[in-house]
Amino acid sequence: MTPGRSEVRTIQWVGGRVTLIDQTLLPLRERYVTCGTWEEVASAIRNMVVRGAPAIGVAAAMAMAMAAREAACGPAGFERALHDATNVLFSTRPTAVNLGWALEQMGRVWRRSDLSVQERVDMMERRALQIQEEDVSSCRCIGEYGADLILSGCLAAGAEGGGQRGAPAPDPVILTHCNAGALATAGYGTALGIIRSVHARRPGVRVLTDETRPLLQGARLTAWELQRDGIACEVITDGMAGHFLKSGEITHVIVGADRIAANGDTANKIGTYGVAVLARENSVPFIVAAPLSTADFDLPDGSSIPIEERAAEEVTWCGGRQMCPAGVAARNPSFDVTPARYITAIVTDRGAALPPLGPALRAVAGHAGGTA
Amino acid sequence: MTPGRSEVRTIQWVGGRVTLIDQTLLPLRERYVTCGTWEEVASAIRNMVVRGAPAIGVAAAMAMAMAAREAACGPAGFERALHDATNVLFSTRPTAVNLGWALEQMGRVWRRSDLSVQERVDMMERRALQIQEEDVSSCRCIGEYGADLILSGCLAAGAEGGGQRGAPAPDPVILTHCNAGALATAGYGTALGIIRSVHARRPGVRVLTDETRPLLQGARLTAWELQRDGIACEVITDGMAGHFLKSGEITHVIVGADRIAANGDTANKIGTYGVAVLARENSVPFIVAAPLSTADFDLPDGSSIPIEERAAEEVTWCGGRQMCPAGVAARNPSFDVTPARYITAIVTDRGAALPPLGPALRAVAGHAGGTA
Repeated sequence: MTPGRSEVRTIQWVGGRVTLIDQTLLPLRERYVTCGTWEEVASAIRNMVVRGAPAIGVAAAMAMAMAAREAACGPAGFERALHDATNVLFSTRPTAVNLGWALEQMGRVWRRSDLSVQERVDMMERRALQIQEEDVSSCRCIGEYGADLILSGCLAAGAEGGGQRGAPAPDPVILTHCNAGALATAGYGTALGIIRSVHARRPGVRVLTDETRPLLQGARLTAWELQRDGIACEVITDGMAGHFLKSGEITHVIVGADRIAANGDTANKIGTYGVAVLARENSVPFIVAAPLSTADFDLPDGSSIPIEERAAEEVTWCGGRQMCPAGVAARNPSFDVTPARYITAIVTDRGAALPPLGPALRAVAGHAGGTA
Repeated sequence: MTPGRSEVRTIQWVGGRVTLIDQTLLPLRERYVTCGTWEEVASAIRNMVVRGAPAIGVAAAMAMAMAAREAACGPAGFERALHDATNVLFSTRPTAVNLGWALEQMGRVWRRSDLSVQERVDMMERRALQIQEEDVSSCRCIGEYGADLILSGCLAAGAEGGGQRGAPAPDPVILTHCNAGALATAGYGTALGIIRSVHARRPGVRVLTDETRPLLQGARLTAWELQRDGIACEVITDGMAGHFLKSGEITHVIVGADRIAANGDTANKIGTYGVAVLARENSVPFIVAAPLSTADFDLPDGSSIPIEERAAEEVTWCGGRQMCPAGVAARNPSFDVTPARYITAIVTDRGAALPPLGPALRAVAGHAGGTA
């Protein structure tokens, strides 16, 4: 199967409006919602109708393009209105840096006082669509770099050596967590982009996906994407990851990222840190896949990455049913931080960074292409 | 609150029948089911109406007492009928050794050819009730030994040293996984028995409980028990355990056990191994609580403990709702094995075993009382 043949239309720009596949209803209902105002896009981000760090960035960029057209005709000042829209969009989800990155990209356009308002409105629409296109091509680059890395076998032997040299490498068995797929991006995906690229070359690849409570993005979204693409997939509960890593069945772990600090510390969906520790404990390579725009070089390490806390009901309820006794408290951090020392490689759209990750990330950011 | 004041009636022997609280319906419905035949008890074990290694043992012993009364009046031979009942009950759940232990205890009665059938029937009922009573007192001993160990502070400093000597120890914050409570035993609980005993001495103790997918025994049962006893409790998803262990908030992990090999390797609910690795990675003591009958000295290590695989639908459905796309596969091992090297202590009803766990367990088994 050609990668992307059945590609998901996560975010579409149609006649000045944004159409999103409603990710809260997948996989049982494939419903598209159209946002007619930028505020509706902000609500869709907050309520996770659209989620995934790169996808949030694209949606926010399109929301700004909508806000610009509205502000051009509105009573308030153009820049004042866009300043306010930026703040509202920025506050929807705090952890993913791509949101701030996309808003910054749009800010470079709407702040251009050398252009007329109408020129800025037109340019913002073009820039938003360009961010969308760039994201798809970024994912394809990540996929190819990641597939190169995995199929070269240089990780499979692990830092500890081992691996049967000379023997044909067995098909990879990849564990992933949450959904870093076409649904989390403008298309193709980051972690699932690598899996798609591996699958194009090695159709025997198999995937285990953590269901990823509380919102079950692995069970609902990753399984749905892989099934559409004909990639063998089995769902496990989050607590099973350690068992299958210990069993020797899993050859690689690949996850996405919401924010990567300058030293390589990586914020990603809650549960990622645990998988990373269990991978290292069992000498399984742990790979982070993300566009370079996910790197936040302003943060020296992961300790100051803001961690979103969401409503307790996401934990105490499941499948529309209350699971805990009434009145019992729950905690709900949406992300955790995996220290760089557990990460075998960060695969970006500009190449793979290998430890030491801090200098390698800077090198990747400075030079296009190649493995740092 | 006096420990056990609001104690749960997990298993009751009422007029030759077994009454069970239906653990599949808790916490939203508190319904009791009465089993009129031993086969109904076998079904209740298989369907997890009653679950938890010690509770399964008690239920199976009572089922054998019921089978004996039926066999005494039945057309088939007494011993033949009980042999068959033993096999059926043994096959209901393969991992917990307490089931086999209880059936073995009952076998020592029904095989006594020196007694009349009626004498054996009467003695089996008494033995089943004795196993039930012994289990409650075992749990209370585990609770006291465990509370001694935790509140002595000798674990809090960890093998790595540290801890502020001289300063009053802060209230413990205990992470537990699944339900090793009154519902998993004849009463009081093993892991929750220790928590209850700690709470009696240190009311400020707090508990975080993993929800424990797929069947959510932590969210449904542990939270329900702790709430009844007025012990502060917060529910987290299984993927959050690492985050909270890394944050430094958790002072101890306590879990139950379904089977402990001679070297201390411990089978327990799926996800336990991951929590153990994450506890060690963050220098948090990891304590296993179980009656000595959970030790299987015939197994040198955990590699040959049978791991039950249950239906994929337990994973692909949640809260009565299908979560995965139709046709997607799932894996569902119910247990995992935690190697002894991750375990800080095994607290039994005869005392606590500290590393090296193999010799310590043998010492505990050989001598009543004391810390080995």
